[in-house]
Amino acid sequence: MATIAFRSTTPTSLSIIRHAFRSKSPRFQSTSSSLSSLSDDGDNKRPSIAIVGSGAVGGYYGARLWESGSYDVKFQMRGENLKKSTSDGFVVTSIDGDIFIPPDQLQAFEDPNDVGPVDWVVVCLKSSSLSDIPDLVYPLLESKRTRILTIMNGLIEEDLIQLLKERAGGEEFCAALYGGMALVCSNRTGPGTVDHSFAGLLSGGLAISQERVFTDEENQQAFQDLWAPTSIDIAYEQSLLAGRWRKCLWNLPFNGISVAMGGITVDKIVNDSGLRQLANIIMDETVSAANADMAAHGFGKEMYLDDADKKKMMDLSDNMGPYRTSTMIDFVEGRPLEVNYLFTKPVERARALGVCVPHLDTLVTQIEAYQRFGNLK
Amino acid sequence: MATIAFRSTTPTSLSIIRHAFRSKSPRFQSTSSSLSSLSDDGDNKRPSIAIVGSGAVGGYYGARLWESGSYDVKFQMRGENLKKSTSDGFVVTSIDGDIFIPPDQLQAFEDPNDVGPVDWVVVCLKSSSLSDIPDLVYPLLESKRTRILTIMNGLIEEDLIQLLKERAGGEEFCAALYGGMALVCSNRTGPGTVDHSFAGLLSGGLAISQERVFTDEENQQAFQDLWAPTSIDIAYEQSLLAGRWRKCLWNLPFNGISVAMGGITVDKIVNDSGLRQLANIIMDETVSAANADMAAHGFGKEMYLDDADKKKMMDLSDNMGPYRTSTMIDFVEGRPLEVNYLFTKPVERARALGVCVPHLDTLVTQIEAYQRFGNLK
Repeated sequence: MATIAFRSTTPTSLSIIRHAFRSKSPRFQSTSSSLSSLSDDGDNKRPSIAIVGSGAVGGYYGARLWESGSYDVKFQMRGENLKKSTSDGFVVTSIDGDIFIPPDQLQAFEDPNDVGPVDWVVVCLKSSSLSDIPDLVYPLLESKRTRILTIMNGLIEEDLIQLLKERAGGEEFCAALYGGMALVCSNRTGPGTVDHSFAGLLSGGLAISQERVFTDEENQQAFQDLWAPTSIDIAYEQSLLAGRWRKCLWNLPFNGISVAMGGITVDKIVNDSGLRQLANIIMDETVSAANADMAAHGFGKEMYLDDADKKKMMDLSDNMGPYRTSTMIDFVEGRPLEVNYLFTKPVERARALGVCVPHLDTLVTQIEAYQRFGNLK
Repeated sequence: MATIAFRSTTPTSLSIIRHAFRSKSPRFQSTSSSLSSLSDDGDNKRPSIAIVGSGAVGGYYGARLWESGSYDVKFQMRGENLKKSTSDGFVVTSIDGDIFIPPDQLQAFEDPNDVGPVDWVVVCLKSSSLSDIPDLVYPLLESKRTRILTIMNGLIEEDLIQLLKERAGGEEFCAALYGGMALVCSNRTGPGTVDHSFAGLLSGGLAISQERVFTDEENQQAFQDLWAPTSIDIAYEQSLLAGRWRKCLWNLPFNGISVAMGGITVDKIVNDSGLRQLANIIMDETVSAANADMAAHGFGKEMYLDDADKKKMMDLSDNMGPYRTSTMIDFVEGRPLEVNYLFTKPVERARALGVCVPHLDTLVTQIEAYQRFGNLK
């Protein structure tokens, strides 16, 4: 298994794949080798997928995978979410079409040991639960078969790989590990219910893979094939590092300001001249840190973030309405905040690279203090 | 009248005068010419003082002046404060000794036209009420007799002088105008009641004076004589500009962070490692802006703010306990915030001088946004 996270195979630009069909019924059965199931216990030999963490993000993307009809999808859930979903079904309301998974079709589990190895593990936990991942994921892995996709926030890869290696007692815990960045407005509205209100682009890039099992090209194809039967727009990141920073480009100003201002929605930020300007400055600081980090990792300028990326994020936010960012929800509801990987790590990385990010530093100092005051760890 | 605010006559260092006696009974009758009353309607020829704004600051310092027995003190009050004080008396609880002004000894007024010219006008309003000052103060002035002392926050002098000149239809509206900086923890606890919990040093410096009436030395002596019969520790600022910035050195980090963090007390700031560090950085930025401003006004380096000033402010804050800053109280109680002169002007001045104050800029952007959101103007 390669040891370098944030791989770049070819320095091509990001291409977004828009799926032409958005049917709720299964219309697609993949024939690509990367998608065919290596599992014997799959339903009708469909590839098996375990969604670890079925909240706002896992619930949404997992339901889209289930909706395609192409996969044997199993949802890891806990507590009220598990109870309500298994009794009444799992409900996704969405601007792109609602989904209802009836209780008799919902495969939900709490303990991953009840499932065993699958083809794909899609991890959608808060980065504040990073240390829980090895125990939750390990029983779902078969070293040369399973691919992991972490649709999570923050610069998590280095620590996650280390944790998984420790759990596996060695390097080869999976066939490939991807990072996923969800540009989606999705909130859990209650046990067994998720509301998707805006956007939905999912980008992903490779963190590490076992080169003796799959080539990088096969891994890229596998990621694209995974989402092909769904209505999800995807983009493949040749550099996961660029993808992570591009997600920071939204998270740092918008999750950041929404919390630092005591819990405000995105419309308040974009519609206030001062906060909008602050968001712009935070994006400038993020671009500087991102590009210095990419230079330090040997990526060329064609990978760098730029004003077009900034504009995209601001345009997206302008159309988001009174969206409550995930960190803002955690904050106002007194739940653990995603501070370390989402906020502290980017600032630390900027500092280590000698990049000045004083506005961001102020916000992050405030958020860290809120976390300490509320014991939101 | 000299047109330059922030005068410096001699570049001596700040000297703090500690009064040896702290009696509640009058023990001092000034014989200095600058203190002897020019008024005919004074009680026993004692110098007359009008306190304009009898809240946390005006109530405290006004009561100390009254307590000395040396002055004919008249308190400008409004609404519930006026009603309660005139019926039940004015109460100051203080770590330096309580004061009670019985109703039959309290001279309170609402309309300054009922008072007429006095020797001293001590203005203790929020800087957010700056534009109310000319109408409140003008009836109390006799151009060649009255000295004005504004114990107020922020870089107010330039605008205030302009407003007073406009109201007077000319330049010579008073004999001398001083700026006062109160390093005091004092809160209004209800109508007719003020609580003084910590510190109390009052520094002051000359903004402008009529040179044909008094010399700068006479004005300095007059300021010192004013407070001599009281228990208030004073300091005379050879440069009002330095004094204003020295006050900013506390206000910007502590009022600033207390509001930007949604309304927290000073102990929360000094006891949290991150916020304490942020306060330190804000002080560094303030020192840079202050010294650049002093250089631009032609003051020498002996006037500059330095690490000793920073340390003094941090030591003061370390002993302040759960003190609620004035802006924090206004914020949590939904009252107008002192944003413009306390926060925006210092940032604007720094920007005009090319001094980088990004951490402060972030806080001020947040505070300005809170002001807009809550319509706290």
